[in-house]
Amino acid sequence: MGELEEKGARAREASYQLALLTTEQKNQGLLAMADALEAEMAAVLAANAQDMQRAKEKGQPQAFLDRLLLTEGRVRDMAEGIRAVAELSDPVGYVEEMWLNKDNLQIGKVAVPLGVIGMIYEARPNVTADAAALCLKSGNAVLLRGSGDAIQSNIKIAAVLSAAAEKAGIPAGSIQLVEDTSRETVNAMLKLNAYLDVLIPRGGAGLIRNVVQNATVPVIETGVGNCHIYVDETADLDMAVNIILNGKVQRPGVCNATESLLVHKNIAEQLLPMAAEKLLQAGVELRGCPQTMQYIPQSKAATEEDFATEFHDLILSVKVVENIDEAIGHIRRFSTKHSEVIVTNDYSHARQFQQMVDAAVVYVNASSRFSDGFQFGFGAEIGISTQKLHARGPMGLKALTSYKYIVNGNGQVRK
Amino acid sequence: MGELEEKGARAREASYQLALLTTEQKNQGLLAMADALEAEMAAVLAANAQDMQRAKEKGQPQAFLDRLLLTEGRVRDMAEGIRAVAELSDPVGYVEEMWLNKDNLQIGKVAVPLGVIGMIYEARPNVTADAAALCLKSGNAVLLRGSGDAIQSNIKIAAVLSAAAEKAGIPAGSIQLVEDTSRETVNAMLKLNAYLDVLIPRGGAGLIRNVVQNATVPVIETGVGNCHIYVDETADLDMAVNIILNGKVQRPGVCNATESLLVHKNIAEQLLPMAAEKLLQAGVELRGCPQTMQYIPQSKAATEEDFATEFHDLILSVKVVENIDEAIGHIRRFSTKHSEVIVTNDYSHARQFQQMVDAAVVYVNASSRFSDGFQFGFGAEIGISTQKLHARGPMGLKALTSYKYIVNGNGQVRK
Repeated sequence: MGELEEKGARAREASYQLALLTTEQKNQGLLAMADALEAEMAAVLAANAQDMQRAKEKGQPQAFLDRLLLTEGRVRDMAEGIRAVAELSDPVGYVEEMWLNKDNLQIGKVAVPLGVIGMIYEARPNVTADAAALCLKSGNAVLLRGSGDAIQSNIKIAAVLSAAAEKAGIPAGSIQLVEDTSRETVNAMLKLNAYLDVLIPRGGAGLIRNVVQNATVPVIETGVGNCHIYVDETADLDMAVNIILNGKVQRPGVCNATESLLVHKNIAEQLLPMAAEKLLQAGVELRGCPQTMQYIPQSKAATEEDFATEFHDLILSVKVVENIDEAIGHIRRFSTKHSEVIVTNDYSHARQFQQMVDAAVVYVNASSRFSDGFQFGFGAEIGISTQKLHARGPMGLKALTSYKYIVNGNGQVRK
Repeated sequence: MGELEEKGARAREASYQLALLTTEQKNQGLLAMADALEAEMAAVLAANAQDMQRAKEKGQPQAFLDRLLLTEGRVRDMAEGIRAVAELSDPVGYVEEMWLNKDNLQIGKVAVPLGVIGMIYEARPNVTADAAALCLKSGNAVLLRGSGDAIQSNIKIAAVLSAAAEKAGIPAGSIQLVEDTSRETVNAMLKLNAYLDVLIPRGGAGLIRNVVQNATVPVIETGVGNCHIYVDETADLDMAVNIILNGKVQRPGVCNATESLLVHKNIAEQLLPMAAEKLLQAGVELRGCPQTMQYIPQSKAATEEDFATEFHDLILSVKVVENIDEAIGHIRRFSTKHSEVIVTNDYSHARQFQQMVDAAVVYVNASSRFSDGFQFGFGAEIGISTQKLHARGPMGLKALTSYKYIVNGNGQVRK
C-alpha cells in the first residue's frame, strides 16, 4: 500500500503539469524515450533474459514465452512505436464546440487529459512502452502494473523511459511502474480512486473480469471477442471463404479473430465444404451443429459451450441458420459485442445487420481482423473497448482524453 | 431477484426494438405519456398523498417533504417536461465521422443508444418522468429504481407512462420501475451486468458512494459539488459580490451552489465586509479563516472539515489567500471537480485558472449556478457528471448515447 499511495500521489502531481505541456515538449520526451530504449538495449535484453529463464523454469507454454520474449528487433520496434506516437497529432486542447447561451455566456468544450491512468496488463513487456508513450502524448500520467512474470523487463523498461523523459523535461512521476506485483497490491490499485481517474485492463478474460468486478475506479473494459461471421444467402461464396479464412487463421490468438460461423441454410451445402477444405488445410478444428456435420464429415459436434467460447485458437464453431433473423438472434445471445460480420449482396440485409447487431464494429463484406486502431487509421491503439461508456471499439489517443467546459462571462448570475 | 432478472430481460428485449424506432415514433410515445400523466392527475396525486402521509408519520424534515410532494402544478410541469423532450432533436443515428481506410474500407462512427440504463434515485417522483422521457427519446430502455419513500407515486407514474407509451407503439418493457425497494435488490441491480449497460445514480453523497463502491455495471457518477469562487486581486468587487451571492443564496440545496469563497489578500479587507453584508442579510452563516474573522466579526472559525464540506445549506466557508496559486492549490485539494469560478479582470489569470483547475466546468466572471443542462442550452438534463469517463458536466441527450463503427467493404481481408 505504501508504494501505491506514494506513486499515486506523485502521478497526480505530475498530471497537473503534464496537462500544461506543449505538444513539442511531449514529443521531445517521446523521442528521448525511444533513443534511450535503443541505447539501453543490452540492459533491457539482460533483464528480459531473467524473466525468460524464470518462465521456462515454471514450464510456461510456448505462446506465453513468445509474448514475454524481447529481441533486439522487438526492442527496436518498441522504440519505433514510440517515435510513431510522437508523429501523431495531439488530442489535447481541441475545442470541439463553442457557443453562446441565452445569457451570452461563451461555453466551450475543450479536450483535456483524463488525468492519471492505471494500466493493468499481462506478461507482454511491449505494453509497458506502448502505454507509457500513448499516455504521455495525451497528457496523462500513468501507473503501470504488469505481470510478475515480466517484472524484470518492466522495471528496466520503465526506468529507462522515465529517466529519459525526465531528463527531457517531462515531470517526474509521469511514468511509473508498480513494482509490487502481489494480488493485494493490484486489488488496492482497483480502489485507488483518490489518485486514478481510469483503469484500463489489457489481457485475458480472467484479468478483465477481476478488474470489472472489483474496481471502484472507472474502468474501460477491453478485449473479449467472440466474433461471428454470418454468410447470407446472396453472398459471393469465394469472398465468404476468404473472409472466414482470414478471420480464423490469420492470427487466431487475438480478440478480433473470428470464433463462430453462421451460414444460411440455402447455401450451406455449397459453402461449407468449400470453406472446410481451406480451414482443415490450415489446421482448423471445426465444431458444428448437426446440419454442419452432415455437410462437413470431418467436423465434430458443437456444444452450447462451444458457441459461447472465444477459442483464441484454431477452432471454429459452425451453425446453419434458417435466415438472417436467426443469425442476428444467435449473435445477440452469444456475442461479446466486439466485432460482427455479415457477408451478403442483399442491400436490405446489409443495412438490417448493421442496424440490429449491437457490437463495437459491424462489418459488411470484410474481415473482423480489421478491428484495430492501426487498421482504422488512428495511428495507435491502447486497446479495444467492448463496453459502451466513453469509448467503443479500437481506442486511439482520443479515447485517453476527457473534456471540460470553459465558460467566459462578464458578471452573469442566474435569475 | 426474480423481479430484477425478469424486468432486466424485458428491458434488454425492448432495447433492441427501441434502437430501431424513428424519431416520430418516439415522439408520439412521449406526447402520449405527457397526455396520460395529465389525464391521470387525480390518481397520481392520490398515490403521492399516501407517500406524503407515510413521510410525515416518519417525521421527515420539511425539505424532504417538499421534494416528495406532488401538486397539480408539479404534475403538469412533469407533463410539459416530457413534451419538451419530444421537441429536442434525436441524437441517435448521427454519423460523427466517416472515412476510407488504407484498404478502402468505409468506416463510419454512428451514434447509437446505450441500451438499457439503470437509474437509481432518491425520493423525487419527478425524476421518474424525467428519466423515462430522456431514455425513451435517446432510444434506451430504462429500469427505474426510486426511493421506497416515493414508491406509491413512482408505481403510479411509471404505470401511467408505460401504459401510454405501449399504447402509442413503444415496445413493452421500455419503461419499468423496480418495485422492490429493498437494499438487497438495489445491490443486486448494481451487479446486473447481463442486462444493464450503464447505471446513473442521482441523489446525495451516500447514495452515490454506495453505487460507485459496489457496482460492477459501468457508472456515470453525478452530482457532488464542493464549488469554489476565487476572487482575484483585479476583480470588479460589485460583480464579485453579485456572483458570490447568486452562487450561495439563489438555491443553496443543489450541487452547483457555491460552498466556499477564496479571496486575494489585497482586496480581502474591502471585499469581505461588502460580501458579508449581503450574505448575512440573506441568512448565510460564514465560517472563515483567522484573517476572514478579522474582516467579518460575525463569522465563526472554519475547520478543515468545513472546507471539505458540501453544505447544501446557507453556510459558506471563507479563506483569504496569498495569490492565485494558493487558490488553485486549495481548490485542487478540496474540489469535487464539479464547478469552479474565478472573478478577475486579469487576462493571464483567467487563462491560468481555466487551464489549471481540473473541474467539469470552469468559469470566469459568472455564477457556478449555470452548470445545468438547461442553462447550457441542451434542452434537458439527466444529471451532472463529476467523473471524466464518457461524459463530464451537464449531461443532455447525447450523454445517453454510445456509438458503433459500421464498416462497409467488398471482400477486404487483412494481409
